[in-house]
Parts: sequence; C-alpha cells; structure tokens
Amino acid sequence: MTPQDTSPDQRLEDLLPRLVSENDAAGIEQLIEKHSTGELARAVGRLDDEERGKLIDLIDAEVAADLLEQLPVVQAVQLLEEAEPDQAAAVVDELPSDLQADLLADLDDEDAEAILSHMLPAEALAARQLKAYADDEAGGLMVTELLRYPEQWTVHEVVADLQAGADEYRDYQIQYAYVCTQQGQLLGVLRLRDLLLGDRSRVIRDIMIPNPLSVSDHLRLDELHGFFQQHHFLGVPVISDDGLLVGVVQRADVDQAWIERQDRSMLRRQGIVSGEEIRSMPLWERASGRLSWLSLNIVLNLMAASIISHFEATLAAAIALTAFLPIISDMSGCSGNQSVAVSIRELMLGIVNTKDVFQVWLKEISIGLINGLAVGALLGAIAWFWKGNMVLGMVVGGALFLNTLVAVSIGGIVPLILRRLGRDPAVASGPLLTTVTDMCGFFLVLSLASQFIDYLK
Amino acid sequence: MTPQDTSPDQRLEDLLPRLVSENDAAGIEQLIEKHSTGELARAVGRLDDEERGKLIDLIDAEVAADLLEQLPVVQAVQLLEEAEPDQAAAVVDELPSDLQADLLADLDDEDAEAILSHMLPAEALAARQLKAYADDEAGGLMVTELLRYPEQWTVHEVVADLQAGADEYRDYQIQYAYVCTQQGQLLGVLRLRDLLLGDRSRVIRDIMIPNPLSVSDHLRLDELHGFFQQHHFLGVPVISDDGLLVGVVQRADVDQAWIERQDRSMLRRQGIVSGEEIRSMPLWERASGRLSWLSLNIVLNLMAASIISHFEATLAAAIALTAFLPIISDMSGCSGNQSVAVSIRELMLGIVNTKDVFQVWLKEISIGLINGLAVGALLGAIAWFWKGNMVLGMVVGGALFLNTLVAVSIGGIVPLILRRLGRDPAVASGPLLTTVTDMCGFFLVLSLASQFIDYLK
Repeated sequence: MTPQDTSPDQRLEDLLPRLVSENDAAGIEQLIEKHSTGELARAVGRLDDEERGKLIDLIDAEVAADLLEQLPVVQAVQLLEEAEPDQAAAVVDELPSDLQADLLADLDDEDAEAILSHMLPAEALAARQLKAYADDEAGGLMVTELLRYPEQWTVHEVVADLQAGADEYRDYQIQYAYVCTQQGQLLGVLRLRDLLLGDRSRVIRDIMIPNPLSVSDHLRLDELHGFFQQHHFLGVPVISDDGLLVGVVQRADVDQAWIERQDRSMLRRQGIVSGEEIRSMPLWERASGRLSWLSLNIVLNLMAASIISHFEATLAAAIALTAFLPIISDMSGCSGNQSVAVSIRELMLGIVNTKDVFQVWLKEISIGLINGLAVGALLGAIAWFWKGNMVLGMVVGGALFLNTLVAVSIGGIVPLILRRLGRDPAVASGPLLTTVTDMCGFFLVLSLASQFIDYLK
Repeated sequence: MTPQDTSPDQRLEDLLPRLVSENDAAGIEQLIEKHSTGELARAVGRLDDEERGKLIDLIDAEVAADLLEQLPVVQAVQLLEEAEPDQAAAVVDELPSDLQADLLADLDDEDAEAILSHMLPAEALAARQLKAYADDEAGGLMVTELLRYPEQWTVHEVVADLQAGADEYRDYQIQYAYVCTQQGQLLGVLRLRDLLLGDRSRVIRDIMIPNPLSVSDHLRLDELHGFFQQHHFLGVPVISDDGLLVGVVQRADVDQAWIERQDRSMLRRQGIVSGEEIRSMPLWERASGRLSWLSLNIVLNLMAASIISHFEATLAAAIALTAFLPIISDMSGCSGNQSVAVSIRELMLGIVNTKDVFQVWLKEISIGLINGLAVGALLGAIAWFWKGNMVLGMVVGGALFLNTLVAVSIGGIVPLILRRLGRDPAVASGPLLTTVTDMCGFFLVLSLASQFIDYLK
C-alpha cells in the first residue's frame, strides 16, 4: 500500500477537526462526499461540542442535510443542537419531512423553538404539525412530499407536471401518485407503471386503483410493520381524522424505525433504561442514566439477599453451601432468560398472543423438566464429588431442579403478562425474573439444607 | 358485539385445524385471505406436524405461496417439510427467488432435494444456484426477477414489452429496468420515471444512467446495509464474478434480513445459541439446544465458585458476608452489561471501530469511577447499618467499587476485541463478562475480608 492509499481513511478522525478549525468548508464537503456513513459517524463522534456546531455552520445547508440523513438520529440531534439556529433552520428545511419531525422532537424544546423561529412561517407550521405526532405513529413516520392530482386530469397532464417539476421531485421517493378530490380526500392510487402503460389521453380517474388501502395518521408502528408484512406495497397513504390525505408512509421508513426500536429495546434490556446512549453524550447524563438502573437492582438484590441472611445459622453449619448460592442464582437466571427470549420473539412474530399463557407454560414446563433434571443432576454430582458429601449434592441438585421449573415458568409467562399490561416485555422481564428466581432459589436450597443439616455439617 | 362479529377471529386457531381435517380447501383459502399475518402465524403455530403438511397439500399452490411469504421463515420451513414434495415444489415455484433460496437452504438436505427433483429442470437449476449462496450475502438476498433490455432498444420497444408482459411482471417489484450488453454485462439503469418522461423514439442507452453502482454477489449483509444507508436507492444490481448482471437486491429485503439478524442475535445473547427457537419445534430439539448453553454456564460458574470455596475459612468466620456475594456478582454484571450494550450499539452504528479500544476504555472508566463510587457507597452503607459492622460495610462497598471498574472496562472493550477476532460480540460478551467479573468480585471481597477478618467476626 502506498501512503496515499491509506492515509486519508485512517486519519479521517484527525482530518475532520483540523478542517473545522481551519474553516475549510470545501474540504469538509469533499470529505462528506467521499466517505461512507460509518466512517463519518465515527469521525463526528470524536468531535467536541464546539467543533460539532462549527462543522454545521461552516458547510452548505444542503451538504449538511445530506450528512444528517446518513448519521444516526442521536448524532444528528447533537450536531443541530450546537449549530447556530439560522443555519440549523436552513439545514432542517432541506431534510425530508419525516426526519424533520424526528429531529425536532428529539431536540430540547428550547433548541427546537429557536430553529422553528428561523424557518419560513409556512414551513415552520408544517414542521410543528409533524412534530406533534409521536415518532412511533404513522403521522410521525410519514413524508408529506407526495404527488397528488385532481381526478379529472389526464395522463398527459400528469406527465407534463412530472416533467415540469422534475427538479423538485428529484428527491421524492416516487412510486405512486395519488388522485384526490378538490377537498383533498383520497380517491385512488396511480402506479408509475400504469401511467407509463396508459393511453395519454385517458382521465386518471379511469386508470387509478380506486378505494386504495390507507392508514390513519395515528396507526402505531407495530401495526404499520404488520401492514407491510401483509402487503407488498412500497408505501401507504395516510389519512387524517377529517378524512384528508396528509402524507405517505414508506416501507423503508417503517423498517428503519423498527430496527431502531429493536436497538433501543436491546439497550433497555441491558440496563440503558433511557434507550439511548452514545459515548459522545455528556458524562453526567450517561452516568446518571446508568445509575438509575443500578439503584433499582441494588434494591432487588437486597430483597434476595435477605433470604440468605435469614438462613445464616444453616450456612454457618454447612459453609460448603456458600459456593453454590451464586451458581443456583445464575443458572436459574440462564434458564429463565432463554424462556423470556423465546416468548418475546414469539410475541414479535405474532405466533403467540397475550391469551396463550397456559399453552406457553405447558411448552416451557416440559423443557424445564428435561433441562432441570439434567443441570440438577450435573450440579448435584459435581457438588457430591467436589465436597465429598452426597446429601450436599442432593440438596444443591434438587434445589436447582426445582428452581429451573420456577425459572422457565416465570420466564415464559411474564413477557405475555407484561405485554397484556401494556408494558415493554423486553425491559421489565429481566429484573422481575432475576429477583423472583433468586429469592426462590436461595429459599429452596437453604430450606432443604436446614432439613438435612445434620448430614451437611 | 354480536356473535358473528367476534367468533371468527377468536377461534381462528380452532377453525383452521377443523377445516384441515374436513379437507375444506376453499374454506382455508378464505381464511388466509381474510386474516392478518400475525393471526395466521399464531394459528399455524398451533397445528401439529400432520396438519401442517395437509394444509399445504390441500390448498392452491399460489395461495400457499402467499401464506408462506407472510409467515416467519422458520414456520414456512416447517410447513414445506411436512408437505408432499410435488406440492411443495409447486409452491416453491410461486415464491420470489430470494425466499426460494432462503427456504431451500433452511430445509434438511433430503427435503430440499425431494422438492428440487419435482421442479422443472431449468427452475431447479436456478434454485440450486441461489441455494448455493449464503443467506447473508447479496446472492442469497437478491431476486432474479428483473427487467433487462438491450442497449439499442427504444423507449417505445421497452414500453411495448412492459405492456405485453404486464401479467408476468405484476409481481415484480419494478422500480428500475436494466440495460445490458448482448453478453449480459450491465451498462446502465433506467428509472421508470425516465421512461415515462422520455421521448418514446429515443434509444434507452441515451436516457439510462450509465455506469450505475452495483454490488458483488458476495457482498455481506452488513455492507449492503451500509450501502443502503448511504444511498437512497430502492434496489441495487448484483454482478457475478464474471461481470454479469445476475439479480437485484431490494432495500426492503436487506432491511428484513437485518431485522431477522438482530432477532437471532437477541436470542443468542439470551442463551438460545442456535439463534432460532419457536415452540412448535420438537421438544427434544428445543431442550438440547438450550442445554448446550446451560452446560457451558455451569462450567463457567464453577470456575467462579472455586474462588469462594478457596475462602471458606474467611466466610466461616464472617458468615454475614455470604449474603453479599450474589449482590456483588449481580451488580458488577449489571454495570458490565450496560457497557457491553453501548459498545455493541456504537459498533453497529459505526461510531466506534475495533481500533478504538483505548478511547472506549477512557469513556467507560470515567463512568465506572462515578457509578462505582455511588453503588459502592450505597451498598457499603446498607451493609454497615444492616449488619452493624462498619468494617463489613467498607469491605463490601470497597469491593463493589473496585469490581465496577473492572466490569465497565471489560464490558466496554470485550465487544471490540471480539469483533476484531471476527466473532459476534452479542453472543460471547455476556458469558466472558460474567465469568471474569464474578471471579474478580469474589476474590476482591473475600481477600479484603481476609485482611480485616479480626474486625468482621
């Protein structure tokens, strides 16, 4: 490799701050053009707040919008936050309407207001309306850039408009055009291919697909996801409460939102309860976000530990047991988590719903019997030979067997119940499972040990 | 609600097996038409093997293909497995090529061969070629149903072909047509809108976008995902090693594959190591799949437990400590998992890469200092007041503080190192983290306790 080959890529993270400090707008724009999404995200992640603001202020609003479209939303928000409001407004103006809504909703109210006040009144009004939608309903996911034509137009007139507006429409994701009444009610959908194949003198009302499927602007993301699984469309028109066509939700945007929702859910499940953390966020925000989860877990852990404390006399008499307490806690957690994972997946796929508690329990308890017997016998045998005490082996193995039954039952059922209560099963299932199985596991092994304490000393 | 309103939906899972046992093909086809993806998935999940086979054998191949397209791949495979090979072949023939490749690759070799042998030779050959691709490379994700035209054709000729082939092309996801040489090399892309707006007498070579971006048939899913993040296309042409246009990868299919990959990764992380389990799989397959993970974890847990055993004398002298061992293990696990989650997310977004070990560690250790101090002080204070022993509080709190530093360091860095080694960080990070932090945590608290054992008795 020659130095020319390798240096630009390897040092993008050094080059970008240097160009920012040198106010080299053209250089930065070239970098953005040349580098991939991932490389840009990494280099932007290394900038400090001041550099982030300056980056956006320096470059052309259209290029900045290109950059923001490529970056993760959380980074795009960080960039807009630090930019001057007038430049930020110019950049937001260049973005597609769904991303506008996302970013404005994620900004602090103060920052969002500052940007909106620098936009043209009509555009600010439109942006405010979109911002009012939740980001996981059709209104928050739709784009408002769409082609709509009056029913009495001919194919020829539509094609002429497409020709005249080619520049404006270039960035539209045009797969369909929509046929509306004067009042804005949706009458039908025109596929581009129908326009292409249709006689140019025909009225579009006659070649459109009438009474097309549409969705309410308040339809939730999971319902939209289901809709696009069932139908092969690339987009679906969105109708407001008063029956007007207000936008189009694209399949690609629903998929994107679904991926982000899974990412957030994964973060939450692992204890990033806000659902969002990247390491360029302020230290204090990151630390306190994580701490809230840790504090909750200390409390839950203390509840489980109180069971152990209650049996201190037993433990003192059979000290070899102590090494097995964390094992029983962890192994039950493993079994329970497997059941949680399968339940969450089946819920997501729609294979089970919240009414299937009994069926799920039956399926889980069968596995629990097999695997509980296997791990119980294994751990029991190990305990027996390691500590040279058969009764110890039976106590430890028996407790693990019984607690595995508890763990798979709770793990299988709890996600269904949480979903029925309207909670996210991915987040709350873990701590609930761990606390109950810990308490139950400690109680089982220690109360069994108390019964047979004479053989354990 | 009248009975007519509610009964059909509530009892789909009862109705479907009844219609199957009554050989009521028309009734089943109506049900499939009428119900949503999720409802169908749930009802199919309740069928036993025999019913699943009969369902597919009974109904029209085209309707069966519609059904399979809606179901999760794992369910679709279960259905094909149980159907008669000739009917299965007819169904597979109706599927888009990317789903054909998926299903045939996921079937047992024997079942796949039986189906292929019932297909027409040309179609079987095409399906075999697709099946040879991995399901996470462009060749396995592409569809081969695409529009290709010779460079010298006019817009008029293309439109005439579209008109003539309207029936065949109905199911194609046509956004682009491809302009090729006689030998099949890709020269350019025609957008449907260019055809629409272009003069019909023009040669398509003159209005196509020349030298379009394309991808190799061996491009990996993560690279394709990056490609579609960077470019606003709905599809990208796929080129084989010998330079020929072999298919098109659609954005929607890449998004779908990405979502499934995340699902599998979530399952693996939670101990479903095969990456796939639904409860209609055979009990033994499910139990043994889960058991492999449990066995590994028993071994890892025993390693950690051996540390506790080593300090039995200390524990016997300070029995109050035992209640705190699982707390230190669990709390360090929590802190470490938070760091793992953020690292995996940043890797996915491209904000960090495998070279950023030191930067990540710096960011994590700062949080570790703050949160370690917080949880250490909290647990220490609780231990002091609960057990009435200040030294016990200092030992427990100090150990948790130190082990939090260990946990966030390992949690932050290990995913980067695993990725560099080409492993999936989502799967291996958890057990690695837990084992090391458990061992380290037990060692810290027990060796500290040994030092101050006179104050703990």
